[in-house]
Amino acid sequence: MSRQQRDALDAVLRSAPRSERRPTPEEQRSGFAAAVTRPAPEGVVTCRTVLGGRPALELEPAEASGRGRLLYLHGGGYVIGSPDTHAGLVGELARRTRLRATSVDYRLAPEHPFPAAVDDGLAAYRELLASGTDPRALVMAGDSAGGGLSIATLLAAREAGLPQPAAVVVFSPWADLTLAGGSIRSKESADPIFTEADVRAYAELYVGAGDRAHPLASPVFADLTGLPPLLVQVGANEVLLDDAVRLAGRAGADGVEVTLEVGPDLPHVFQHHYGRLDEADAALERAARFLTTRLSSGRPGADHLKPVH
Amino acid sequence: MSRQQRDALDAVLRSAPRSERRPTPEEQRSGFAAAVTRPAPEGVVTCRTVLGGRPALELEPAEASGRGRLLYLHGGGYVIGSPDTHAGLVGELARRTRLRATSVDYRLAPEHPFPAAVDDGLAAYRELLASGTDPRALVMAGDSAGGGLSIATLLAAREAGLPQPAAVVVFSPWADLTLAGGSIRSKESADPIFTEADVRAYAELYVGAGDRAHPLASPVFADLTGLPPLLVQVGANEVLLDDAVRLAGRAGADGVEVTLEVGPDLPHVFQHHYGRLDEADAALERAARFLTTRLSSGRPGADHLKPVH
Repeated sequence: MSRQQRDALDAVLRSAPRSERRPTPEEQRSGFAAAVTRPAPEGVVTCRTVLGGRPALELEPAEASGRGRLLYLHGGGYVIGSPDTHAGLVGELARRTRLRATSVDYRLAPEHPFPAAVDDGLAAYRELLASGTDPRALVMAGDSAGGGLSIATLLAAREAGLPQPAAVVVFSPWADLTLAGGSIRSKESADPIFTEADVRAYAELYVGAGDRAHPLASPVFADLTGLPPLLVQVGANEVLLDDAVRLAGRAGADGVEVTLEVGPDLPHVFQHHYGRLDEADAALERAARFLTTRLSSGRPGADHLKPVH
Repeated sequence: MSRQQRDALDAVLRSAPRSERRPTPEEQRSGFAAAVTRPAPEGVVTCRTVLGGRPALELEPAEASGRGRLLYLHGGGYVIGSPDTHAGLVGELARRTRLRATSVDYRLAPEHPFPAAVDDGLAAYRELLASGTDPRALVMAGDSAGGGLSIATLLAAREAGLPQPAAVVVFSPWADLTLAGGSIRSKESADPIFTEADVRAYAELYVGAGDRAHPLASPVFADLTGLPPLLVQVGANEVLLDDAVRLAGRAGADGVEVTLEVGPDLPHVFQHHYGRLDEADAALERAARFLTTRLSSGRPGADHLKPVH
């Protein structure tokens, strides 16, 4: 239990300055980078690369287990964030899974609206397969908008006739750009980060006048049949709580093996606070175990992979 | 993976004879007992007892870990089932948690309609506490109607000012007697056991002309604030799938630490099929770990409990 840690984190998040006018995307990007960036953990080597035609950051843990790979899509409302802002979080996941991770710098809105991000996610996934990565040795993860984008990428891969990876984990996925979840309103005061207006502004920048209920923008409305085992982690203090609950419910109804975890008193993508919030480390450990056990679930050809238990 | 096991189980369940007229409760009880009863596993000693004024079955594993206790409420639509029909399932849970379990023979409908079962659940819980059981060393579990009843019992305990136990696990909980979940219809052909009419008939026998949306009859409509960590396991081939999803969503929104697991191609209370269905054994292992780790989560006074990992 970390009652004090959770209370302290909530207070810190609430103390973030809020300007009267909504900042420009550029201002939001630099503000976000300054506020949340954490470096890759010690022992995880990073290098710049290109995947699917987009810049990407590769993060390789010292004890990488071999051929397994992790494809990561960062959060930031489809407008902000980068592999650099998420180097710490993705590095932690790489370290705990002992998998080489690639974090893609997909194109952002409003300069590149929907479906640019999905196109980039699919291109990255496609290139990983084309370069010889066994899909049974490949797992995927993402947070917030990157969580919704991870699901959208897998749907696009399914439509393109590509095989699915071994598993996918999403942290606080943004999966409904129509904002139809009850928590958008009911959790507004509990959420120390987002208001309904914040989320709506991101949806406007990403989809604009387009169809916000499109399954590749709002996978809560998609047929999720054929997706791999899915772990959804979310905090209870989130306007996006119902995105996670409905995504899990939809996945389960569509025959996907799914686990949903809701953590009390926790904010959006609380996993970012590893090392100073016990629940973040515990959640990352469970996420890593979920991914690595699916890699080694006895499917033919995956036997060489060493799971981390 | 147990594709063959799941298909075979589905075929067996669908082959069960169905009479033209709905059997009487007595006929249903004897038919259910003949069809599902499995004995307690080897190494688990059973004895008849009384708890909260009701007969009960105590199941003690050879390697019981000490003072920890498991209170179990069986399923059967509030109309059928008993500690004897569930001796195998509860015994397996006792063995895997290394906890002494007590399975209560609460009063059944239509002879004893709502809220008789809740009264009996609360009386059993109250007597366990009164006889000196530390609530931090006490966990609870139930399946189907017994899953809904477990939640109702904890709500009644909360209203009575009693402390909550350390954790609760529910298998395929029946948590909405108004049958408002979409899966009641959408999963009817996928469900090899229940039709909407079957479930509705149980609701009529249990609540009759009463309020089926009462929070102690349908905990999906309850305020679940204050409940202990909750694990919900459900199969995807269930008309009751949405009971599980909505119960988990409600619990998460109310600040309960909750995990929901949905297993593809699995029927109602698939855990009953341990030993012949891999997913059943794996689910029971996860349930046991969920319960025992909460017993030993570092709360003051619980240090003496030995967790099973």
